[in-house]
Amino acid sequence: MIPSLQNLIDQFRHLPSIGQKTAVRLAFSVLEFSDEEIEAFTHAITEAKRNIRYCRICQSISENELCEVCADPSRDAGLICVTEDYKSVMALEGVKEYRGVYHVLHGALSPIDGVGPEQLRLAELIERVETGTVREIILATNPTIEGEATAMYVTKLLAPYPVHVTRLAYGMSVGTDLEYADAGTLWRAIKGRRSMESDSSTEN
Amino acid sequence: MIPSLQNLIDQFRHLPSIGQKTAVRLAFSVLEFSDEEIEAFTHAITEAKRNIRYCRICQSISENELCEVCADPSRDAGLICVTEDYKSVMALEGVKEYRGVYHVLHGALSPIDGVGPEQLRLAELIERVETGTVREIILATNPTIEGEATAMYVTKLLAPYPVHVTRLAYGMSVGTDLEYADAGTLWRAIKGRRSMESDSSTEN
Repeated sequence: MIPSLQNLIDQFRHLPSIGQKTAVRLAFSVLEFSDEEIEAFTHAITEAKRNIRYCRICQSISENELCEVCADPSRDAGLICVTEDYKSVMALEGVKEYRGVYHVLHGALSPIDGVGPEQLRLAELIERVETGTVREIILATNPTIEGEATAMYVTKLLAPYPVHVTRLAYGMSVGTDLEYADAGTLWRAIKGRRSMESDSSTEN
Repeated sequence: MIPSLQNLIDQFRHLPSIGQKTAVRLAFSVLEFSDEEIEAFTHAITEAKRNIRYCRICQSISENELCEVCADPSRDAGLICVTEDYKSVMALEGVKEYRGVYHVLHGALSPIDGVGPEQLRLAELIERVETGTVREIILATNPTIEGEATAMYVTKLLAPYPVHVTRLAYGMSVGTDLEYADAGTLWRAIKGRRSMESDSSTEN
């Protein structure tokens, strides 16, 4: 095998969810790039790495000192949604109705992977709560073992502070047939059942 | 969305078989690279593009004037296997028993995609045949409409020369159950059926 081609294939294989066959296909497609396309591709990689940093307040990624959400005065800084990563922030930003802000932990507690509380951006969250301007913290970590453990941990951590701690509701996906829902989701839906009258009185 | 992140996602989306979700995942994984990993990744891309050229004889890709196969005096230069691309060469090189050489056409005839005979490396193949040292040409283009058309075209092109033109055998995959074979493959297997006695007399 040609060394520089093998090297390129190996580099693609390091990326998540890229297997041997895909890495080979990607490497060959790069060989067919024009010089301009090669330049645009490598530039995008180095620039993204160079330009992107963490928002001083919410620890989300940003090209500036403050992310777009924290820099927006129309957002409610008293309502913080705590997520594991920026991908969750992107998903939640898709819900236009949410007008609060975020706090990105950069992971979830996972002793088996060596992720303890000190690896997460928890000190920064406590700092925000200590300013006394935060009314409510919505825990939006993922509904996994790690995400649940993290939500429990953050709840205990925030207990001394006069802040309302909530968790995202979990249950049936909108538009899903019951027969396709997994048991864990159904159990959540049963535990979280609501009286029919209260259905319209949704909180903000 | 953060511009340099969006740009990186767009660049990944240009690669074949990479959809939006995979592009996002790849872009985020790149953000988590160390500076050294970023450097290694971009270097691999530019170096592969810079170093790789076409073998002067067989038009396969190579880092040198001649590819490893053409530069190897133990290979039989009188037996040329004609393929559409280097990926086919890699697959055939996996079959250690093949001791001939290759000729890479860089595509297959496809009028609908604007690929005519002048886009393929056919002149270079004729040049090799005209040296008079070639005994046999094995057509190993893919068993697709384009590959078959290309095989037919090359056969006609070589008709004036005293060279034996053959086609790879197509039929059942080794280890496949008949019930899983598609009709096209089964038809090939029926048309190409061999007498039980001749099975051991395989040609070289």
